[in-house]
Amino acid sequence: MFTYACLVSTQAQVLYDFAAELGNNELSIREGETITITNQNIGGGWIEAKNSRGEVGLVPEDYIEVMKMLLFDAFCFLPITSNGNNPWTVFDNNASGGFSNNWAAQPEGTETGKTSSNAWPSGGHGHPQAYQGPGAEDDEWDEEWDDVKSSGGYAESEAGEGGAINRGGAHGSSMKIALNKFPGFSKSGPELYLLSKQPAKGTKLPIYSGEVGPVWAYPDYQLDCVVADPKKGSKLYGLKSYIEYQVTPTTTNKPVNHRYKHFDWLYERLLEKYGSAIPIPCLPDKQVAGRFEDEFIKMRMERLQGWMTRMCRHPVISSSEVFQLFLSYKDEKDWKMGKRKAEKDETVGVMVFSTIEPEGLPDLDLIEVEQKCEQFNRFTRAMDDGVKDLLTIGNEHWKRCTGPLPKEYQRIGKAFQNLSSVFTSSGYEGEAALTDALTAAGKTYEEIAQMVAEQPKKDLHFLMETNNEYKGLLGCFPDTVGVHKAAIEKVKEADKLVAAGKITPSDKTTMSKRASTMSYSLQAEMNHFHSNRIYDYNRVMQQYLEQQVKFYEMIAEKLRHAHSQFTTM
Amino acid sequence: MFTYACLVSTQAQVLYDFAAELGNNELSIREGETITITNQNIGGGWIEAKNSRGEVGLVPEDYIEVMKMLLFDAFCFLPITSNGNNPWTVFDNNASGGFSNNWAAQPEGTETGKTSSNAWPSGGHGHPQAYQGPGAEDDEWDEEWDDVKSSGGYAESEAGEGGAINRGGAHGSSMKIALNKFPGFSKSGPELYLLSKQPAKGTKLPIYSGEVGPVWAYPDYQLDCVVADPKKGSKLYGLKSYIEYQVTPTTTNKPVNHRYKHFDWLYERLLEKYGSAIPIPCLPDKQVAGRFEDEFIKMRMERLQGWMTRMCRHPVISSSEVFQLFLSYKDEKDWKMGKRKAEKDETVGVMVFSTIEPEGLPDLDLIEVEQKCEQFNRFTRAMDDGVKDLLTIGNEHWKRCTGPLPKEYQRIGKAFQNLSSVFTSSGYEGEAALTDALTAAGKTYEEIAQMVAEQPKKDLHFLMETNNEYKGLLGCFPDTVGVHKAAIEKVKEADKLVAAGKITPSDKTTMSKRASTMSYSLQAEMNHFHSNRIYDYNRVMQQYLEQQVKFYEMIAEKLRHAHSQFTTM
Repeated sequence: MFTYACLVSTQAQVLYDFAAELGNNELSIREGETITITNQNIGGGWIEAKNSRGEVGLVPEDYIEVMKMLLFDAFCFLPITSNGNNPWTVFDNNASGGFSNNWAAQPEGTETGKTSSNAWPSGGHGHPQAYQGPGAEDDEWDEEWDDVKSSGGYAESEAGEGGAINRGGAHGSSMKIALNKFPGFSKSGPELYLLSKQPAKGTKLPIYSGEVGPVWAYPDYQLDCVVADPKKGSKLYGLKSYIEYQVTPTTTNKPVNHRYKHFDWLYERLLEKYGSAIPIPCLPDKQVAGRFEDEFIKMRMERLQGWMTRMCRHPVISSSEVFQLFLSYKDEKDWKMGKRKAEKDETVGVMVFSTIEPEGLPDLDLIEVEQKCEQFNRFTRAMDDGVKDLLTIGNEHWKRCTGPLPKEYQRIGKAFQNLSSVFTSSGYEGEAALTDALTAAGKTYEEIAQMVAEQPKKDLHFLMETNNEYKGLLGCFPDTVGVHKAAIEKVKEADKLVAAGKITPSDKTTMSKRASTMSYSLQAEMNHFHSNRIYDYNRVMQQYLEQQVKFYEMIAEKLRHAHSQFTTM
Repeated sequence: MFTYACLVSTQAQVLYDFAAELGNNELSIREGETITITNQNIGGGWIEAKNSRGEVGLVPEDYIEVMKMLLFDAFCFLPITSNGNNPWTVFDNNASGGFSNNWAAQPEGTETGKTSSNAWPSGGHGHPQAYQGPGAEDDEWDEEWDDVKSSGGYAESEAGEGGAINRGGAHGSSMKIALNKFPGFSKSGPELYLLSKQPAKGTKLPIYSGEVGPVWAYPDYQLDCVVADPKKGSKLYGLKSYIEYQVTPTTTNKPVNHRYKHFDWLYERLLEKYGSAIPIPCLPDKQVAGRFEDEFIKMRMERLQGWMTRMCRHPVISSSEVFQLFLSYKDEKDWKMGKRKAEKDETVGVMVFSTIEPEGLPDLDLIEVEQKCEQFNRFTRAMDDGVKDLLTIGNEHWKRCTGPLPKEYQRIGKAFQNLSSVFTSSGYEGEAALTDALTAAGKTYEEIAQMVAEQPKKDLHFLMETNNEYKGLLGCFPDTVGVHKAAIEKVKEADKLVAAGKITPSDKTTMSKRASTMSYSLQAEMNHFHSNRIYDYNRVMQQYLEQQVKFYEMIAEKLRHAHSQFTTM
């Protein structure tokens, strides 16, 4: 499902000071100031804005952060969490309070949900980006969000000077759990699974007792894939253009082609099916597009690769039918049939827990379940804070390294060279040894300036990307944890419900057992998260430090050479 | 003579953006803005100022540059050139124009000047810092400017955080040529020497033809001295305190004690006697004092050392009677007698040229004299610009290296350590290897922050000090060159004066010959300047680059160690 929101009014927070140049119709802004955007379609990286004193002028879009005032679309259940908002706040109140009165009275059945989704507008009216139903043909999919030239707003201006890069915002930080399969909010609650009388459908997902606790069943062979070779394609006689990526799984080594919208389709399927049990991180932001096409495509590809690798590493995801289809469909017919099948999957939402089978693990009591849930919640919150902090600091460091710092080295270099040419003009004999060395030293500092400016792409970039990925992952946990908390609340109410005759004592036992299964699922997922986290941070820190060492060694080497050119006295 | 000026109105130019913190009575200012200082006596590095919108608040004094509106004291002949002003502009108009009409009509004789100087206020009234006559006793010398606690204004806040150091302003950039020995401006002109009938008095200063052109007579032994061991003394029952420095010449190796005011007395004597021929750089700023006594004393001593070394290196200065007296007086009586003798010296101002004797060098014609003068003027102007540029850039780099940059490394270090402690809280087994390495990496970045902040003192400091010294030296050249230009103008007018019967044809020949002597003096001085410049810049650049290499090598080494602590995978 595509969540969608209209932008009704736009204010922006000023991130960095900007001093207007006279005569350029620019507006001076100060960090922390709030301005109103009056025209977003200026282009060239500029936006027209008005300050609180009513002065209007151009400001660089990289210097501000738009505060979106969202008018939620009727088809959107969860707010689109924009960069900087805290998805965790959703759970600061008791999440289960909203639907605890009538949950047991609702009829079951996912079919109702499916039917209801067909009642949504498809094609003829409504938003162009609204979901058009699972049966819609490929060609009917809206191309807008896949289009290279779509919005001119925020650009991945990594190549741009001064480099204000919105690295923190590339991945959305909240997972949109597919509650919309079940119209009526109460329907989507964990009670659907806790009290389900249906036999479990679909592949079983066993959980074993491993060294670190409950773990998923890991395959012998670790799947991976390569996302490469982006090619521009077009349709409608060239009116619409898109980028197709080549995805090659290490299993078949046979490449398949996918457009961004196919990745998005996969994301939606995984979210719908596994989102209650497994955090499915958002894809790289679809709104991102802009001036530097090649840079943008490269960045999106890199991020799609990161996303795919993460999915490949997940034992449940990587072995799922829909993921296998995506990676290794034989032909168009195979793909279309598989797509339809996946879209008709009924074991989605909380029902995924019905396929989870803890093998030889004792049932957990509610206190233990609650403790584990709280522990994970605390940890993921704390890590979310830590990661965001690092991203903020990294972003500032990036800006300094690509902006003022190399400019300063460049000026130092120029000053030495300038002094050298002044000295050359002295007319004094025996000047050449000094002036040559001074010029060389000046050029060295200019080279260092260049190195400094290019360094973040070599080290900080990967540190930022990894943390960005984790920010996206961690942003999914409030939803995942929320489902568990809601389930715990349900089980706590079981005695009252038995007393009121709404459920049987046997139902209560089932609920408790199923909450235990959910907890094993959460624990297995956390253990998966932890082992990946340790691997990822070990790797990225090593990579970062290795590049940093090389960087400083190279500077030292250059300066040593510059030093050697001066006459020893 | 002490030049003196009253500050009547004070505006300031904003050098850097400063954002006021709420509730602190601060005022936000923008780079380039002009503000009016409303209270300079706030202390603690703050100044109260008003912006163009009439808003009043505190601003950090390091962020602004005061534009002094000077009301010249009646005893002051030349403007005190404040930091940033261009002393060269004095010579953009024809310097000789002002006194070309009546110069020849004035009676000669330096004695008149001496007498007239006695008419100046001495002690009882007038400014406390005004010159009190050469015969005044030691105890009558005003102590203010020698006092450690004197003014609380600008401090050498090298040790302070954020470190905006007014490194560019430590030496005044204009030499105050002792024109005041000869009351009436025209009296001080070069004509005094050009047409002097008196036999030359005092030690002869020969100029020889060297490899690079005319050169001073260099001694076989290069004099040097060590300024060390500052000791606090007091007088008037402890009411007045001062610092006494130990000065040990390499010749006698016998230390003598001098207070700052003694150095200043020496400076005044050298300026008076040699200032027309040799640029005598100002002493380290006497107004400088402040919060960090030890730092200040250390810095002043370092700069006095630099000044003394430069004087020692000059063949004319170092062999002069007054300089020898200063370095190696036997006892108090010897010192006082020598002082009085020096103060009675009549061969001062332009008359110093009468003692200069080009040995075996042919007389130069006026065109050649003029060309040389123009060449030196161009060069010293260009170098002055280059040096000031480097100082500005160095100052900004210093601020970045002691302010925002280490703060950023510190934040990176803290973020890594914070992430490490979050990871520790995961409850997941096998976490320790990563968290230990991550903590170590974090600490490494904190150490790097410290290194970055301390580095400027190890390298940039000497580069800045050397350039600062040269700024001071170069600031004297406009005066020196001015004297020569004025002499050239006089010689050019000689034909007219002969025609008008004001001088004889023989006078004209003498004038031309003496202008040639002045040119040889200037050439010898420029050659001295050039050879010292080449030596100094070679040395300081080597020192700078050597320290820079060490710095980057040490960072690389630290990071290599941090890297090694991560698990190889």
